[in-house]
Amino acid sequence: MTQILAQLGRWSTANGIRSLSFAQDKPLQLAGGAALAPLTIAYESYGRLNEDKSNAVLVCHALTGDQFVASANPVSGRPPWWPRVVGPGRPIDTNRFFVVCSNILGGCMGSSGPSSEDAEGKPYALRFPVITIADMVRAQAMLLDALGVPSLFAVIGGSIGGMQALQWAAAYPERVFACATIATSARHSAQNIAFHEVGRQAIMADPDWREGAYQQLAVRPAKGLAVARMAAHVTYLSQAALQRRFGRAPKAKAAGTFSFDPDFQVESYLRHQGRSFIDRFDANSYLYITRAADQFDLAADYGGTLAQAFRHSRTRFCSFGFSSDWHYPPEENKAIARAQVAAGCAASYVEILSDKGHDAFLLEEPEFEATLTGFIDAAATARGLAWQSDKRA
Amino acid sequence: MTQILAQLGRWSTANGIRSLSFAQDKPLQLAGGAALAPLTIAYESYGRLNEDKSNAVLVCHALTGDQFVASANPVSGRPPWWPRVVGPGRPIDTNRFFVVCSNILGGCMGSSGPSSEDAEGKPYALRFPVITIADMVRAQAMLLDALGVPSLFAVIGGSIGGMQALQWAAAYPERVFACATIATSARHSAQNIAFHEVGRQAIMADPDWREGAYQQLAVRPAKGLAVARMAAHVTYLSQAALQRRFGRAPKAKAAGTFSFDPDFQVESYLRHQGRSFIDRFDANSYLYITRAADQFDLAADYGGTLAQAFRHSRTRFCSFGFSSDWHYPPEENKAIARAQVAAGCAASYVEILSDKGHDAFLLEEPEFEATLTGFIDAAATARGLAWQSDKRA
Repeated sequence: MTQILAQLGRWSTANGIRSLSFAQDKPLQLAGGAALAPLTIAYESYGRLNEDKSNAVLVCHALTGDQFVASANPVSGRPPWWPRVVGPGRPIDTNRFFVVCSNILGGCMGSSGPSSEDAEGKPYALRFPVITIADMVRAQAMLLDALGVPSLFAVIGGSIGGMQALQWAAAYPERVFACATIATSARHSAQNIAFHEVGRQAIMADPDWREGAYQQLAVRPAKGLAVARMAAHVTYLSQAALQRRFGRAPKAKAAGTFSFDPDFQVESYLRHQGRSFIDRFDANSYLYITRAADQFDLAADYGGTLAQAFRHSRTRFCSFGFSSDWHYPPEENKAIARAQVAAGCAASYVEILSDKGHDAFLLEEPEFEATLTGFIDAAATARGLAWQSDKRA
Repeated sequence: MTQILAQLGRWSTANGIRSLSFAQDKPLQLAGGAALAPLTIAYESYGRLNEDKSNAVLVCHALTGDQFVASANPVSGRPPWWPRVVGPGRPIDTNRFFVVCSNILGGCMGSSGPSSEDAEGKPYALRFPVITIADMVRAQAMLLDALGVPSLFAVIGGSIGGMQALQWAAAYPERVFACATIATSARHSAQNIAFHEVGRQAIMADPDWREGAYQQLAVRPAKGLAVARMAAHVTYLSQAALQRRFGRAPKAKAAGTFSFDPDFQVESYLRHQGRSFIDRFDANSYLYITRAADQFDLAADYGGTLAQAFRHSRTRFCSFGFSSDWHYPPEENKAIARAQVAAGCAASYVEILSDKGHDAFLLEEPEFEATLTGFIDAAATARGLAWQSDKRA
């Protein structure tokens, strides 16, 4: 199987983006019924696959992330997004593990998405089929097949990446030895959906969105996308983090003038977040991926009981919540571990005291890193994984 | 003083909106330094002023409210916005009190605001001067002067209306016998400012905003204003209230189709909130009033210590917080009462257990109504106010 797929796929590298493409004869069957072909999966990898192919780790990225988890993005120049978690000597030690991270299906960093071209070479825009978290995971499985990775030592992800990791454990229990999910949820609350909908409406309210066909018209809904990002960004930070960092600190502006220029530093910060986002993200991808996240409901796929999603699993689970995360609150992450325990799995819930909000999982949180290291190391020992280089200090 | 002002002002009624206008020779001196003239204050009143003019209650409305606290709005046809709190037999009993509610300065229901005309008859748009909560209160004081109300038995307000009530107590301590502030804050947190800024950016991102000059151009930034309202609306509801009311209930849509039409009822609800808002509110008013709320910082006006704002006060205070209000959390309301107590005032903090979020103060909350009734009745007794009609049961 692995060999056949690898032959069917075509490897390429362009502008520093590595990818695997499948032609018309190897479509991705989507949960919505459509088949997607051609299909491209852009990815990055770190470390070496060991001889018995037992040391692979799949890192799943979040809504606006990319495959450059541990190296700079060659297109945007942005630094790696998870350098504290993935790298030499880090919890996911690239001296020990073969780490793969792929741009999610529907994304805009090389994988097939609404800005890709269809078989006739025309941009999809809204003709791109609806995609789900399960579809993203199936595309990742095709990539791993092609890479000759029969099973994962671990799958790990935060936020929407955590949904993918949960989906991996549910859909491919025999291929996942350990699973770490971080600041995520097995399904969106009404509030999650509401905030995503505000973002989608902001994009679609922009006349330059052109019913999604902006790409062909050489325009883009930059202002709408920036507003969407700003609204989302507020949900990623805790009240306390915003207060500590900005409080009511005023923004210097010309004395005696009044305008709707920023009065407060927090406003400038948000505007910067919006502006810098539009250069690196596609508005239609934002629509498709937020929709996939809203639609994700792991329990619903397994008869309405989350535990059923893990009923055949022998995966070792660790679920992390951050105390001040109000986007995916601790309770949501606790519920995941509870369902896993109810399914008879080895599962832990770890709550990290942090006042940084949802974004904490991307920031410096020594307790999180130490706990994740413990979970990974214990799982690696259980898996019988030897160190490839000097054991971490 | 009262007589002079009443002579200077001109009373009128148009389309069911009552208002008081001051001409060029009676400008409103604004905190920002400008003088606003002409000035119009639209208002509504209920009940009768008693002979010794001791039974007046000023109700201050919130961001998107209006003067029609206890009667239907004759322009929009919308029902009264606080019928459970103001009316015959209600906590603010219109059989007992003379209740005044005025459209805030900067608003769009008859009072001077960015959609008003300047002295030359041209719409202000962004030439309207910057306004503050203190300016809104000064305009209310001019109205009360003209109405022959030397002092208030009580001032009451929720949300941004609570800011006005606090400002009244601080600026005119001798004119306020009792003050009830509800689900408010003495200054905005960084998160409050951030959410307001998202709304402002959504409005300004709409090309039909036209740098604020949409009115002259016979267009309006309807889509941007709707997105602003949607973003704000999510902050008015608790996570639990959204979950209970909508959860993940799907929205019926044509089978087999995929679009970015609503998948979930919570999306339809938000879109409805956005759509219905644009018919009743002015985008520039939204910018000016949110800015005034963000700039409000009562402690800063009194040497940095909130208690100093109440140091000469003999007002009786009651501060109400709702347990699930994350827009103006209980802690913010508790801090107000703490400062009032520190200033030596008679002040209570009452926390209402509710899972309805910030909007709880506008909804059915029997415990809130009962507690407010107790506060008002006790204050009325202390003020020696007789009942004008049968005492409530």
